[in-house]
Amino acid sequence: MTGLAEARAAIIAAGQRLDHLGWVPATAGNISVRLGDGSIAITRSGGHKGFLSDDGVIRVGLDGVPLREGDRPSAETGLHCGIYRRFAAAGAVLHGHSVPVTVLSRRLAGSIRLEGYELLKAFPGLATHQAAVALPVFENDQDIARLQDAVETRWAEEATIPPGYLLRGHGIYVWGADMPQALMRLEAVEFMLRCELEARRLS
Amino acid sequence: MTGLAEARAAIIAAGQRLDHLGWVPATAGNISVRLGDGSIAITRSGGHKGFLSDDGVIRVGLDGVPLREGDRPSAETGLHCGIYRRFAAAGAVLHGHSVPVTVLSRRLAGSIRLEGYELLKAFPGLATHQAAVALPVFENDQDIARLQDAVETRWAEEATIPPGYLLRGHGIYVWGADMPQALMRLEAVEFMLRCELEARRLS
Amino acid sequence: MTGLAEARAAIIAAGQRLDHLGWVPATAGNISVRLGDGSIAITRSGGHKGFLSDDGVIRVGLDGVPLREGDRPSAETGLHCGIYRRFAAAGAVLHGHSVPVTVLSRRLAGSIRLEGYELLKAFPGLATHQAAVALPVFENDQDIARLQDAVETRWAEEATIPPGYLLRGHGIYVWGADMPQALMRLEAVEFMLRCELEARRLS
Amino acid sequence: MTGLAEARAAIIAAGQRLDHLGWVPATAGNISVRLGDGSIAITRSGGHKGFLSDDGVIRVGLDGVPLREGDRPSAETGLHCGIYRRFAAAGAVLHGHSVPVTVLSRRLAGSIRLEGYELLKAFPGLATHQAAVALPVFENDQDIARLQDAVETRWAEEATIPPGYLLRGHGIYVWGADMPQALMRLEAVEFMLRCELEARRLS
Repeated sequence: MTGLAEARAAIIAAGQRLDHLGWVPATAGNISVRLGDGSIAITRSGGHKGFLSDDGVIRVGLDGVPLREGDRPSAETGLHCGIYRRFAAAGAVLHGHSVPVTVLSRRLAGSIRLEGYELLKAFPGLATHQAAVALPVFENDQDIARLQDAVETRWAEEATIPPGYLLRGHGIYVWGADMPQALMRLEAVEFMLRCELEARRLS
Repeated sequence: MTGLAEARAAIIAAGQRLDHLGWVPATAGNISVRLGDGSIAITRSGGHKGFLSDDGVIRVGLDGVPLREGDRPSAETGLHCGIYRRFAAAGAVLHGHSVPVTVLSRRLAGSIRLEGYELLKAFPGLATHQAAVALPVFENDQDIARLQDAVETRWAEEATIPPGYLLRGHGIYVWGADMPQALMRLEAVEFMLRCELEARRLS
Repeated sequence: MTGLAEARAAIIAAGQRLDHLGWVPATAGNISVRLGDGSIAITRSGGHKGFLSDDGVIRVGLDGVPLREGDRPSAETGLHCGIYRRFAAAGAVLHGHSVPVTVLSRRLAGSIRLEGYELLKAFPGLATHQAAVALPVFENDQDIARLQDAVETRWAEEATIPPGYLLRGHGIYVWGADMPQALMRLEAVEFMLRCELEARRLS
Repeated sequence: MTGLAEARAAIIAAGQRLDHLGWVPATAGNISVRLGDGSIAITRSGGHKGFLSDDGVIRVGLDGVPLREGDRPSAETGLHCGIYRRFAAAGAVLHGHSVPVTVLSRRLAGSIRLEGYELLKAFPGLATHQAAVALPVFENDQDIARLQDAVETRWAEEATIPPGYLLRGHGIYVWGADMPQALMRLEAVEFMLRCELEARRLS
């Protein structure tokens, strides 16, 4: 059972790791963890995610409503909660902005296909590098409720839902059973996307 | 009200952050903060901005003249003061040199247009990613007074003035209400410019 | 004679160095050292190699079988042991995943040829930059025993065997007499491969 | 007057800085300082320059001969001493290997021309960005005495000698009046060479 103190520490450390990797520029990105009581600990709106303090993390219900009046959670709280509602096994969600995600999502529509990479083994159900994963790419939208509808519509269409998706010109969402797994999956996807970007440059 | 000690600490920390990000190579770059008494704390001429000490930060008036005789402020003090005179809300100014800024400014004349990026929300008055920002690009000039005239002429022409501009083959100026906002805006712009540079390489 | 405690410390430090260099993303990579008693200390399966603790390193025999029942060594233990069996002088083996290795191995079949680099002097028997080294590239394979067979077949064919090879879309194996030499050789190869990748992009 | 202890500390710190910047991979690179007594403190042969200890720095005469019998100075000591003999004002010499230096030197013969960069002001005698600097590129050579002859021949031909040169496929030499100036000049040149490399990739 994850308590608030433990979740805060995990979120603060994750923010430092993501900043070290260059994936939370400016005040971009957001990070959350599902608590044992079913609520969600999530980064507050604004603020640099590489330099979080305890009060930079607040609690919301599965509906996204802050448990303490006056708290302003991340603008994209609805996307985090949508993941926790749909996937009972999801325990942590990471949202970052990297250059490969931003550049590739602006060029590709519908999905980004990754195949032939050893690191695909980071995805559930894929024990070899010979499978392929198609990460959905959604149009960016400031109306988060509408964006979450689009995400859920796509999820309903897919037989297998990979634990991540991209928002065009914006960033990537990745989740896992806990923070270490979410971080591991994000690192794996970001690595493969950097390879994709590099490969598209070669003469 | 920002006092000198607080401003020095903020400038030293900002220099370390900019060096960590690779944006103050050699002795390039300069950093300033507006103090409560209306004077400006600014980095001294020369010296590596990633390794500032207290005596690496001096005070000048809004006219750029050092308040202590013999102090040599940054060569580009006139550009900082020009920003503080024109924008009453400006509390901190950052000047850095990055590879994307240098390479893109050498290829593009007049301005660099950024659109479709979520991080455009870092700019005042833009609540969505669907707007565009055109950052002015000025020809470099060792005559700082003449360069500031060119900057003010452009500002007089624009209905909306973005909180930043580029100097060809030189670097970028970004400002904000305080140091955290200035750093946040610089990180956002640098991120988008890296994306622009990467996108221009793809086959 | 290398004891277990010394080997663990070397492996943990190497993992931190490789993570600093970005070569062990997610849970990728593995690291081993030959002990004085002939057994092999190797990273446990799973786990991020940049954040190893003492219990992240276990012992196996030269046949790859864990010396303590229940321990799960790295999935690729067979490749490490194959190197130690073939090369009596090998004292440390490093396996990492870098973007240049991944991208270049996906484009080139058979081998990657490096010549004209001063850093080729890192390879045994090459005292000048005027020689060339051809690093084998093998098809990736989840059947490690079969993959090791392919590696040994190639070794049997070559007059000179360079102390490394690539796995397509996967990563690189490099070895040396001890951890410092293995790290030095890996840094040298990764540097040259980055140069190769950059050179292939130029117009 | 620089003493040995001070020189060692400067060299160790410079090595850490160069490693942080990725410019001393494997055991590449070497660093030296001219001491008050006219001798030269220089890094020992072999060893990673990012992790120097006091005994990694030894003393040689201006002729390159170790002052303590048995010491093995850097293989390229002759190039350092050639700089100190030719330029009485040279107090520190840095030699590093970066990807831009290696890739560009393999493509360009004779010299690399840098112009229009603000950072050209790091070079002596250039107070504006409107000048140009041509950094010589020499063919690599394991015979250091012969290589130094080629360097001195070129120096004799030039009216103005920039404080640096490149060795094809190998690395760069930069010097200054002291370690801070040498580091500043190296950072400036490496920045401009990265810009050159990036510019050559754009469509």
